[in-house]
Amino acid sequence: MGTGSVRDKLRVRGGRKFGAGPGDFPVGPTSKSNAAKQLVSTGEKLDRLQEALYAGASRSVLLVLQGMDTSGKGGTIRHACGLVNPQGLHIKSFKKPTRAELRHDFLWRIRRALPAPGMIGVFDRSHYEDVLIARVDNLVKPDVWEARYDRINAFERELADSGVVIVKCFLHISKEEQRKRLIARLERPEKRWKYNPADLDARARWDDYQAVYADVLARCDTDAAPWFVVPADHKWYRNWAVSQLLLETLEEMDPQLPQPSFDVQAELDRVKAS
Amino acid sequence: MGTGSVRDKLRVRGGRKFGAGPGDFPVGPTSKSNAAKQLVSTGEKLDRLQEALYAGASRSVLLVLQGMDTSGKGGTIRHACGLVNPQGLHIKSFKKPTRAELRHDFLWRIRRALPAPGMIGVFDRSHYEDVLIARVDNLVKPDVWEARYDRINAFERELADSGVVIVKCFLHISKEEQRKRLIARLERPEKRWKYNPADLDARARWDDYQAVYADVLARCDTDAAPWFVVPADHKWYRNWAVSQLLLETLEEMDPQLPQPSFDVQAELDRVKAS
Repeated sequence: MGTGSVRDKLRVRGGRKFGAGPGDFPVGPTSKSNAAKQLVSTGEKLDRLQEALYAGASRSVLLVLQGMDTSGKGGTIRHACGLVNPQGLHIKSFKKPTRAELRHDFLWRIRRALPAPGMIGVFDRSHYEDVLIARVDNLVKPDVWEARYDRINAFERELADSGVVIVKCFLHISKEEQRKRLIARLERPEKRWKYNPADLDARARWDDYQAVYADVLARCDTDAAPWFVVPADHKWYRNWAVSQLLLETLEEMDPQLPQPSFDVQAELDRVKAS
Repeated sequence: MGTGSVRDKLRVRGGRKFGAGPGDFPVGPTSKSNAAKQLVSTGEKLDRLQEALYAGASRSVLLVLQGMDTSGKGGTIRHACGLVNPQGLHIKSFKKPTRAELRHDFLWRIRRALPAPGMIGVFDRSHYEDVLIARVDNLVKPDVWEARYDRINAFERELADSGVVIVKCFLHISKEEQRKRLIARLERPEKRWKYNPADLDARARWDDYQAVYADVLARCDTDAAPWFVVPADHKWYRNWAVSQLLLETLEEMDPQLPQPSFDVQAELDRVKAS
């Protein structure tokens, strides 16, 4: 499997809508045990690449995670992003905007949370909520959300130009899988805190959400900031796929450790004499 | 080994200065393999406790890491803090203050980086630099740094009262171990980026640093914000000790998952019908 192949297979493209189904394995391992084996070597490679990215401190990565409730944004952060040194991660969860945030443009809070050079930023939800829930729940008028697609594309283009490599993942689960996961949250006392009765409101509008997601994928998939559809009914596949997308992205960036700005031998002599 | 025993053994107390030496094993495993075994079960326990801390979102933990260059602040974050879900970590590295930061009180940038409720904050260096390098390098006048010890104690007291449980670790290495690590950084091309010729300036003032560290440990070890001396010549021991300090701290906090504010059976029925 060559560099870029998972990116190729999972990349959403204009007409394809969601591409693979939520339970499919369009590329890579087809069993949990094979995925687990690959995750170990992926972790080692990510580790080296992340260190070089951090050391060079010129570019950064921004991983955007979107998906319906229970699609596994948190689990992905833990198991895929958790493969790299936590010091190189900048994780930001976007909740319902505060009143202070609502007084600003919708991209204001996003700009404030961007990863510094050298970092891998991870957005758990993002500015895409402003064309998803904002649209389904009529939080803003149609001309407002309508204008946001172009705003987002321009914003992401600007980010890419400034050295932020953007990877956007739609964690694609089925309505039936969400049902199972909501039931599991309720039946397991230690998972109950994650359950929110309001999640059923979004679930009741499942088809509307699928439609606005399809619009996002069709209108905001650009070469500067591509969208990937990650089949997410199987957690192990989702984790494997996102770790692989991160790996391929970093391999393509090919960050290099900075050359020493000092005379190595002279410094060795100084240390030995100290 | 009961709860709190590593905290007891590594806690610095008034007259004891550094307590254990940098290569000692004052408590716990005396071999790398035993430490590694314990790290697995510590990780599982930390995981559950961190989830409850996060879910409850009332209190937070602040782990402060201080130590000479190469003492392993980064390695500790990776291997000890890396045991918990990265989404629950808020890691902040304090570098040389910027000109903007210097226009403010020394605690200004610290307050802005405090962990939100539910989070485990990790400071890689901290406000203690303002009574360490600031003092050794005469960056401020004696009356300025002299006043900071009381300021720090009052600040930490206030933090503790607001629900932040503070754990301060001095990663204690020997001058000889630092020499080996600096040489290793220079000899291994992939580690060279971590080497900074200026590190030798601090090394040349080793005894001065040990003296100002001793002062910090004597003057700022309080029940509200205790200092622990972590022997750090052995990386595996350092990682074990810090993970254990975190674990004992969380065990003592005993965070509880919030009780559901909804009728579980009614919600199960709603989900099943959806």
